Amino acid sequence: MTAIDTETTPVRTAPDFGPATHLTCRECGAQYELGAAYACVECFGPLEVAYTFTGVTRASIEAGPESIWRYSGLLPVAAYAKDEPNLAPGRTKLVRADNLAATLGMTAPLWVKDDSGNPTHSFKDRVVAVAQSAARRLGLSTIACASTGNLANAVAAAAARAGQGSVVVIPSNLEAGKTITTATYGGTLLAVKGNYDDVNRLCGELIGNPLTESWGFVNVNLRPYYAEGSKTMGYEIAEQLGWRTPEQVVIPVASGSLLTKVDKAWRELTSLGLIEAADYRVFGAQATGCSPVSQAYAEGQEVVRPVKPDTIAKSLAIGNPADGPYALDVVRRTGGAIADVTDTEIVAAIRLLAEQEGIFAETAGGVTLATFQKLLATGGADRNAETVLLNTGDGLKTLDAVADVVGPTATINPSVDEVSQALQ
Amino acid sequence: MTAIDTETTPVRTAPDFGPATHLTCRECGAQYELGAAYACVECFGPLEVAYTFTGVTRASIEAGPESIWRYSGLLPVAAYAKDEPNLAPGRTKLVRADNLAATLGMTAPLWVKDDSGNPTHSFKDRVVAVAQSAARRLGLSTIACASTGNLANAVAAAAARAGQGSVVVIPSNLEAGKTITTATYGGTLLAVKGNYDDVNRLCGELIGNPLTESWGFVNVNLRPYYAEGSKTMGYEIAEQLGWRTPEQVVIPVASGSLLTKVDKAWRELTSLGLIEAADYRVFGAQATGCSPVSQAYAEGQEVVRPVKPDTIAKSLAIGNPADGPYALDVVRRTGGAIADVTDTEIVAAIRLLAEQEGIFAETAGGVTLATFQKLLATGGADRNAETVLLNTGDGLKTLDAVADVVGPTATINPSVDEVSQALQ
Repeated sequence: MTAIDTETTPVRTAPDFGPATHLTCRECGAQYELGAAYACVECFGPLEVAYTFTGVTRASIEAGPESIWRYSGLLPVAAYAKDEPNLAPGRTKLVRADNLAATLGMTAPLWVKDDSGNPTHSFKDRVVAVAQSAARRLGLSTIACASTGNLANAVAAAAARAGQGSVVVIPSNLEAGKTITTATYGGTLLAVKGNYDDVNRLCGELIGNPLTESWGFVNVNLRPYYAEGSKTMGYEIAEQLGWRTPEQVVIPVASGSLLTKVDKAWRELTSLGLIEAADYRVFGAQATGCSPVSQAYAEGQEVVRPVKPDTIAKSLAIGNPADGPYALDVVRRTGGAIADVTDTEIVAAIRLLAEQEGIFAETAGGVTLATFQKLLATGGADRNAETVLLNTGDGLKTLDAVADVVGPTATINPSVDEVSQALQ
Repeated sequence: MTAIDTETTPVRTAPDFGPATHLTCRECGAQYELGAAYACVECFGPLEVAYTFTGVTRASIEAGPESIWRYSGLLPVAAYAKDEPNLAPGRTKLVRADNLAATLGMTAPLWVKDDSGNPTHSFKDRVVAVAQSAARRLGLSTIACASTGNLANAVAAAAARAGQGSVVVIPSNLEAGKTITTATYGGTLLAVKGNYDDVNRLCGELIGNPLTESWGFVNVNLRPYYAEGSKTMGYEIAEQLGWRTPEQVVIPVASGSLLTKVDKAWRELTSLGLIEAADYRVFGAQATGCSPVSQAYAEGQEVVRPVKPDTIAKSLAIGNPADGPYALDVVRRTGGAIADVTDTEIVAAIRLLAEQEGIFAETAGGVTLATFQKLLATGGADRNAETVLLNTGDGLKTLDAVADVVGPTATINPSVDEVSQALQ
C-alpha cells in the first residue's frame, strides 16, 4: 500500500460524472451542482445535464465497447461506469427495411432502429443504465421507479445484475405478464390499488421521506441523468449510418424526452465535428387516445394541455408529458411534424412491420410506423427522404394488442389432404 | 448486357455453398452432393456437411459483420449470404456472471452466453438463417417447419424479412402467446388437432408430396445446413473469450444437435489454428420429465431409448432425440456428463439467474443452470474451472413457468405509511 501524497496528488471529492459539469435549468438557466435534483428551485423548470466535452473522436468511440458505454465521453458517467456491473445495453440493430420502403412507395432508404434487442427488450435499458451509474456516484444504494411495464423490467433487471436494491411501484391492475417478468428479477415490487396517476403521486410523496433516503427514483430525482441515456439512440443511429444523420426520423412521444434527446445527440455530434452539419426533420408519433403533444402541434400551441389516456399503446400513455413543449420546439425547428393514429391503425402497423421485416414491435412501434404512414399520406413527410423509424420495445410484451386479429391460417386434422385444402 | 463468354468464363452450375463440398453420412461415411437430403440411402444414418476451409483467419473473421455471417467461411453458405435479406442473428452477449459464480461457490469465472438477444429471442434464429440460405441455393421458395414455439417464431420472422413464403405447423393446443407471435409475422400457420408427434408425422408425410415441392423443411430436409448454424454459438464463445475455449460448457439437450455442434466448432477452430488446443469438458442438461439422453448416460448406454415428454421445459421436450447418441459421444470423449433436473429445480434456477444477473431465461435456461448446480453438488463438474452456460431462449415466452411462484412483494393502498409497512 502506498499512501496518497496529497501534496502532489489532488484528492477528488466531488462525485465523478465524467464530462458533466453541472445541472442547468432549461427555463431560466440557473446552475446547480451535480446531484439528485430535477427541478429548479427558482422557477420549477426541469434540470438538464451540462458538459464540457474533451477528446471524443470517432476513433475513440469506435474503439469502445459494444454497448452504450462507447459513448461514455458524451454522457454524465465516470469513465469506469462500463466496468461496474450493468446490463450493457445498446448497439441494437439498425435494420434496413427495403420491403417496407417499397410498400410505402419510398424512393429513399428506410431504416428501423430496433431497440427490442436490448437486454430487457426496450430502450428503457439505456436510460436506466445511466441513472444507475448516477445512483452509484451519489451513494444511493436502491434504484426505484413508478412504471407500467418496460421501465419496471429494466429497473428490476439492472438492480439484480448490480446487486443493488430496487423498488418498483406499479398499479395493481397491471397485466400479469408485466408483473411476472418484473417479479422474477427480484427486488421489491409494490402493487398499488389505484391507477398510474395514483402510483406517480405516491412516488412524489415518497421522495423527501426518510424512508427513501437511499433511493434514487430513476425517472424522478435522477431524471436529468436518466434522460441523457436516450442520447445514445441518436449517437448509434449516426454511427451506424456511417457518421451522418438521416433526412427524417420518426420517434414515439410519451414524455417527449426521447425525441428531444435524439435531436440533442445529433446537435452534439455536429458541434463536436463528429458528423457534418446536415438538415434533418424530426417527427413525433402519438396514439390518438393519448395525443396531447400532437393536439398542441395541430393547434399551433406552445403549451401542452393534459389529457386522460385511453389507448392500447400503454407505454406511451402519459397524459401530462413533461417534455412535451420541448418536443414541440424540436419538431418545429427542424421542419418536422407530430401526428397521431388510432388503435386500429396501430395494430395494422404492428402487423405490417412484422410481415414485411420480421420485426415484432410493441404497440409503441406500431404508433411510430402508423404515424409515418399518415404523414406520408398527408404530405407531412417525404417519400424521397432517407428515414429512420424508432422501434422502442417488443411485441412479446403487448401480445394482447394483436391477439384478437391474428391466428392460425387454418386448424386441421393431421392429414396431407387437409393441408392441401388449407393451402388453396 | 454482355453475354458470358463460356470459353473464358467458367459457368458455375452447382449451387454455391461456400466452403462446403458435400454431404457425408455420419454412420457409414457415404458421400452425397450438396442438396435437400438428410438421411443416407445406404444406412439411413444422418447426413452432415463436409468442408474444405481456406483463408479463414482471426483477422478475416474480426473484419466481418456483427452477426453469424462473420463466420461465413466456416458455414455451408455462399459468401454473399450476408447480403441477402435475413435477420442477421448472432453476436449475442457473453455475460460475465460474478454474482452467480459467488453464489455457486466458484473460484473460476462463470459466463452466460445469452441468446435471448437474438432477433426472435432464441438460438433458433441462427439455425434458421443458415437453412434459409440453403433454401435459396436449392431453389426452394418456401421455408417450413414443425415446431412448438421458438422455431415457429424464427421461421415465420425470417421468411417475412426475406419476402419468402413460410409454412409453420404447430399443435392446435399450443399456448396462445406462441401462436400469436408466429401468426403476427404472417405466412401460413397450420394448427393441427393432435400433439407434437402428430405434427411431426404429418410433416414427414408432406416431404416428397408434390404439394411441398418448393418447400424446405428447415429441421427435416434442410437439417444438415440448419444444424451447422449451431456452430456459430461455439465460434462466438471462443472469439468472445479472446480466441480460446472455456474449461467447461453446459448445454441444454433437446435433439442433442446444439451440443455436438458447439464441440464441432471448437474442434474446427483448433484444427485451423485459430485457437490453441486445450481440453474442455462438455456437459449436457435435460429436464427429468424428458431425459432420454441423461438416462442413457447414467446407464452407460450408447443408444437412447425414446420417452414420452412431460416437463415445463417444452423447448427441450423431444422424446426421441436424433443426435442423442452423438451427444453422448461428445460428453464421454471430453470427460463431461449429462444430468437432469425436476421442474421445481428448473423454476428455482430461472429465478436465481434473474435475481443474480438480470437475465430472464426461458425454461431451457433454467434447465441448464439447475443441471450445473446439480453437477457441482455431485462433483461431476468443477467449481474451480472456468465455465460457460448456454441460455438459448427468453423468459417472456414461458411466463407460465414462473407465474405461480412470483408476484408483488405487497399489494397496498397508495399511502406512504403502507409503503413503510410493506418494506419492513
